[in-house]
Amino acid sequence: MGTRLGELVQRFGGQLEGDPDIEVTAIAALDHAGANEISFLSNSKLRVLAAQSRAAALILSPLDDPAVAATYEGARIISDNPYAYFARAAQHLVSQAQAEPAPGIHPTAAVHETAQVHPTAHIGAHVTVEAGAVIKARAVIDGGCYIGPEAVVGEATHFFANVTFHARCIIGERGIIHSGAVIGGDGFGFAEDDGTYVKIPQIGRVVMGNDVDIGSNTTVDRGALDDTVIEDGVKLDNQIQIGHNCHIGAHTAMAGCVGVAGSCKIGKHCTFGGASMINGHIEIVDNVHITAGTLVPNSVTEPGRYTGFFPVTTNAEWERIAALVRNLSSMREKIRALERTVKTLKEEK
Amino acid sequence: MGTRLGELVQRFGGQLEGDPDIEVTAIAALDHAGANEISFLSNSKLRVLAAQSRAAALILSPLDDPAVAATYEGARIISDNPYAYFARAAQHLVSQAQAEPAPGIHPTAAVHETAQVHPTAHIGAHVTVEAGAVIKARAVIDGGCYIGPEAVVGEATHFFANVTFHARCIIGERGIIHSGAVIGGDGFGFAEDDGTYVKIPQIGRVVMGNDVDIGSNTTVDRGALDDTVIEDGVKLDNQIQIGHNCHIGAHTAMAGCVGVAGSCKIGKHCTFGGASMINGHIEIVDNVHITAGTLVPNSVTEPGRYTGFFPVTTNAEWERIAALVRNLSSMREKIRALERTVKTLKEEK
Amino acid sequence: MGTRLGELVQRFGGQLEGDPDIEVTAIAALDHAGANEISFLSNSKLRVLAAQSRAAALILSPLDDPAVAATYEGARIISDNPYAYFARAAQHLVSQAQAEPAPGIHPTAAVHETAQVHPTAHIGAHVTVEAGAVIKARAVIDGGCYIGPEAVVGEATHFFANVTFHARCIIGERGIIHSGAVIGGDGFGFAEDDGTYVKIPQIGRVVMGNDVDIGSNTTVDRGALDDTVIEDGVKLDNQIQIGHNCHIGAHTAMAGCVGVAGSCKIGKHCTFGGASMINGHIEIVDNVHITAGTLVPNSVTEPGRYTGFFPVTTNAEWERIAALVRNLSSMREKIRALERTVKTLKEEK
Repeated sequence: MGTRLGELVQRFGGQLEGDPDIEVTAIAALDHAGANEISFLSNSKLRVLAAQSRAAALILSPLDDPAVAATYEGARIISDNPYAYFARAAQHLVSQAQAEPAPGIHPTAAVHETAQVHPTAHIGAHVTVEAGAVIKARAVIDGGCYIGPEAVVGEATHFFANVTFHARCIIGERGIIHSGAVIGGDGFGFAEDDGTYVKIPQIGRVVMGNDVDIGSNTTVDRGALDDTVIEDGVKLDNQIQIGHNCHIGAHTAMAGCVGVAGSCKIGKHCTFGGASMINGHIEIVDNVHITAGTLVPNSVTEPGRYTGFFPVTTNAEWERIAALVRNLSSMREKIRALERTVKTLKEEK
Repeated sequence: MGTRLGELVQRFGGQLEGDPDIEVTAIAALDHAGANEISFLSNSKLRVLAAQSRAAALILSPLDDPAVAATYEGARIISDNPYAYFARAAQHLVSQAQAEPAPGIHPTAAVHETAQVHPTAHIGAHVTVEAGAVIKARAVIDGGCYIGPEAVVGEATHFFANVTFHARCIIGERGIIHSGAVIGGDGFGFAEDDGTYVKIPQIGRVVMGNDVDIGSNTTVDRGALDDTVIEDGVKLDNQIQIGHNCHIGAHTAMAGCVGVAGSCKIGKHCTFGGASMINGHIEIVDNVHITAGTLVPNSVTEPGRYTGFFPVTTNAEWERIAALVRNLSSMREKIRALERTVKTLKEEK
Repeated sequence: MGTRLGELVQRFGGQLEGDPDIEVTAIAALDHAGANEISFLSNSKLRVLAAQSRAAALILSPLDDPAVAATYEGARIISDNPYAYFARAAQHLVSQAQAEPAPGIHPTAAVHETAQVHPTAHIGAHVTVEAGAVIKARAVIDGGCYIGPEAVVGEATHFFANVTFHARCIIGERGIIHSGAVIGGDGFGFAEDDGTYVKIPQIGRVVMGNDVDIGSNTTVDRGALDDTVIEDGVKLDNQIQIGHNCHIGAHTAMAGCVGVAGSCKIGKHCTFGGASMINGHIEIVDNVHITAGTLVPNSVTEPGRYTGFFPVTTNAEWERIAALVRNLSSMREKIRALERTVKTLKEEK
C-alpha cells in the first residue's frame, strides 16, 4: 500500500539520504508525523521541530539539511524546493490511498441522449448533463452537478458536488471546480432606459485553460458578446466574483472574496489578497500583487505590490482619526495660514 | 430564421435608413460583426470603428449618424437610446435563435402532489417542488432547483440551475434568478443570553416584484416577523447578501459582492458599486449612488454620489501614509503648538 | 393548537401577570400582534407601542413593566431578558405550528448501502449520501443536499436544501446549515514552483461542535494536514469564507460577507461585523469585537472593539480628502519646515 522512497525520488527527483526501500503511506505535519509518514521542512525556523520529528522521512532543502541531519535519524530527501516536492509527493500518496471514482454514470443521473460522456468518466448521483455536452476521459463529475448544453469538460478535470457549469462553457484538462461554483452565469449587463433597466443578452462563453482551480461558491460570468477567458494555471479561491468579459492571465492566483468587475484584463503571475476589489474596464500588467482589502479603481501599469486599506486600531482611536481624516482640508488650511503668517514675520524682521 | 429590419423598427421604433427587407440573425460587437449581424454604437469615441464595420446594420444615435453614414454602407437604425434599442433587439434575436425550453416536468423531478405547476411551465431534471408551491405559466425551472412549500414563481420567470427558493417566498413576472442563489434562507437573528445565542425563528418571507434579476450565488434572507421586500425592476449582481427585513426600492441596481445588513430601507433608482457595504437599520433615500468599496454606516438623507475607500498606492508608500494616518492626532497637536507659538511671536512684536 | 401561557412559564420561567389559561398560537411584532399572538418589548423606547398593543400577551422586563401595565390590558410575562425569552417562546410556538418533516428517505434520494441513516432522520428528494456517512437521530437533510463519504451529521441537526458537506467532516447536535453552504471544500493550498502552482492535497477535515449555525452560501474549507475547527455555539451568517486550518472559539458570531484567511486562531465570544476581513496565520483573543468593513492584518492580543474603515462622504469631498491622504507626507514636511522656521524666529528674538 505504501510508496518506497526510491520510487518518490525516481518520480520527483531530489537526493535521497537513507534506505530507498523504506515505505511511506501518508503525509503529516512535522510534529504529528509517525513511523509510516513523510513530512517536510520549508521554513528554517522549524529546524528544531524537524530534528525531533518521528517521521519516517523528511523533505528539506540543502540549506537546512546539515543542521537537521545532525540529530534526525530518519531518511531525508534533499530538494531545492521542499514545499513543491512535498506537494507532488503528497498528491502521489493521496492518490495511492484513495480509490479512484469508478467510471460510469450513476443510475439517477440525467444525461441527455446527445451528450457525449467518455466511458472512463465518472458521473455521480443526480447529475444533469444537457444536450450536446461533452465530458472527456477520466473527468469526474460529483453528485448534483449541472452541465449545460454543449459545455465541454476536459480530460481528468474534477467537478466537486453541486457545481453549475452553463451552456457552451469550456474547461481544459486537469482542472478542479469546487462545490457551489457557478461558471457561465449571465454577466450583469443592462441598458438604462428612462430609469429602468433593459437586460442585454449574454451570449459569450467562459473559456478556461488547463490546470485551472476554481474555489467553492466562486462565480465566473459568461461574456456579453465575446468570451470571459481564464488562462492556464489560474487559481481562484472561494467566494470570488469574476465579471463578464474579464481576461485573467496564466498562473495568476486570487485569495478568497476577491471581486473583479467586468471587462478587466489581468496579467500573468499576479496575486490578489483576500477581498481585494478590482474596478471594471481596467488593465493590470503581469507580476502585479494586490494586498488584501485593497480597492483598485484604475489600471496598474507597473509590476509591484500595491496596497490601500484603512489601518485598524481601537474603536475609540479610530473615531478620533476618522474625524481628523474628514477634516484634512481644514488642517491644510491651518498649515497654509501658518505659512503665510510665518513668512510675514520673517519678512518683517 | 432571421428578422427583417422592418420588423425590428415596427417592434421597437427608431428611424430606419436602408432596406427593411434586410435580415439579421444575430448581434455582434462592432469589430466582429459580419454580413448577417447587427451591431450598435453607443459611445461616440467608437465612430471610426462603426464607420468601418461590416455589420449588416447598425443602431446609433442621431448625433453619431451623420459621421458614420458618410462611409458606412450598411443599414442604420437611428434611435435616441441606441444601447437600450440594441438590448431589446438582441433579446428578440436571441429568443428567435434559441428553442424555448419544452413545457412539462422532467421525469426525474420530484413535484409534490399538492403543488400547482402550470402546463406551459418547464421543470428540469432533479428539481424539487414542495407541497403547495405554485409555478405559473411559462416559468422555467432548470435542473436541480429547490422550490419550498407554498412558494410562488410568477409568469415567465426563469430560475437557472441549482437555485434554492424557500418556503412561502414569492417572485413576480419575468424575473430571473441565477444559479446558486438562495432566496428566503433564515435571517441572522439571535438573542444573546449569558454569552450564548438563542435563535429567533424567522417566519417572514421574501416578496419580490416583477422584472427582478438576482445574480449567481446571491442570498436574500427572509424576514424575522415581517417580510423582506424587493420591489419591481431591482437588479442584483452576483455574490450579494441582503439581510432580513430589508426593503429595496424599485429599479435599484447593485454590483457584485455588495452586502446589505438587516432592516435597511433603500430607495428607488439607487446604484451600489461592487463590494459596497451597508450597515443595518439605516435608510437610504431615492437616487443615491454608492461608489464601489464604500462602507455606509449611517442613513443617507440626500440624493447624490457617496464615496469612502482608502486610495491605493505602492505598498511602500502606503506604509508611510498609513503611519501618518495613525499619527494624525500628533500632527494636529504640532499644528496647534505652532499656532500658539506664532500667535505669541506676533503679539510680542 | 395554541400554547397556554401557563405552559410557557413552566417551560421558560418568568413571572406571569394574567390568566395562565390564555392560549397563544403565534408570535408577532408589537404593532401587528392580534388576539391570539404574543409579542415582546426589549427596547424601552417602544413602551408607548407596547402599552397600545393588542397582543394577547407581552414579554417584558421588570423595568418596563410598570409603565406598560398602566394601560396595557393583556397578560404579561416578566423576564430579565425578554428578548431571549421571546426567542425561546417563539421557537416553541413555531415548532407547534409546523409539522415535523416525516422520518424516512425520499424515493429519489441516493443513499449508499454502507451509509447509516437513523430511522428518525428525514432525507429529502435528490439527496446524495455517500459511502460510510452517518446521519443521526432526528437529523433533517432537505432536498438536493450532498453528504460526502464518512461524513457525520449529529442528532437533530438540520441541513436546508442544496448544502454540500464533504467527506469525513463532522457536525454535532442541533446544528443548522443553510442552503448553498459548502463545508469541507479543499483549502487554498499551493506550493509555488518556478512561477506555477502545485496543489497541496487537503486531507484534514472540518470538525464542528454542537449548536453551530452556518449561513446560506457560506464556505468553510477543510484543513490541509490538520482540521479546521468550529467550536460549540458559533454562529456564521451568509456568504462567509473560513480558510483552511482556522480554529474558531465557542460562541463567536460573524455577520455576512466576513472573510477569514487560513490558519487563524480566533477566540471565544468574539463578534465580527459584516465584511470584516482577517488575515491568515494570526491570533485573536477572546472577547474581541471587529467593526464592519475592517481589515485585521495582525494578531489582536487585547479584548475590545477594533475599527478601521475609510469614512464615507460625498464623492466630491472624498476626492479632496483622498488627495490629501495621498499627500500626507508633504503635509508633514510642511509642518516640519514651519517648526524649523518658527524655532529660528524665536531664537533670533
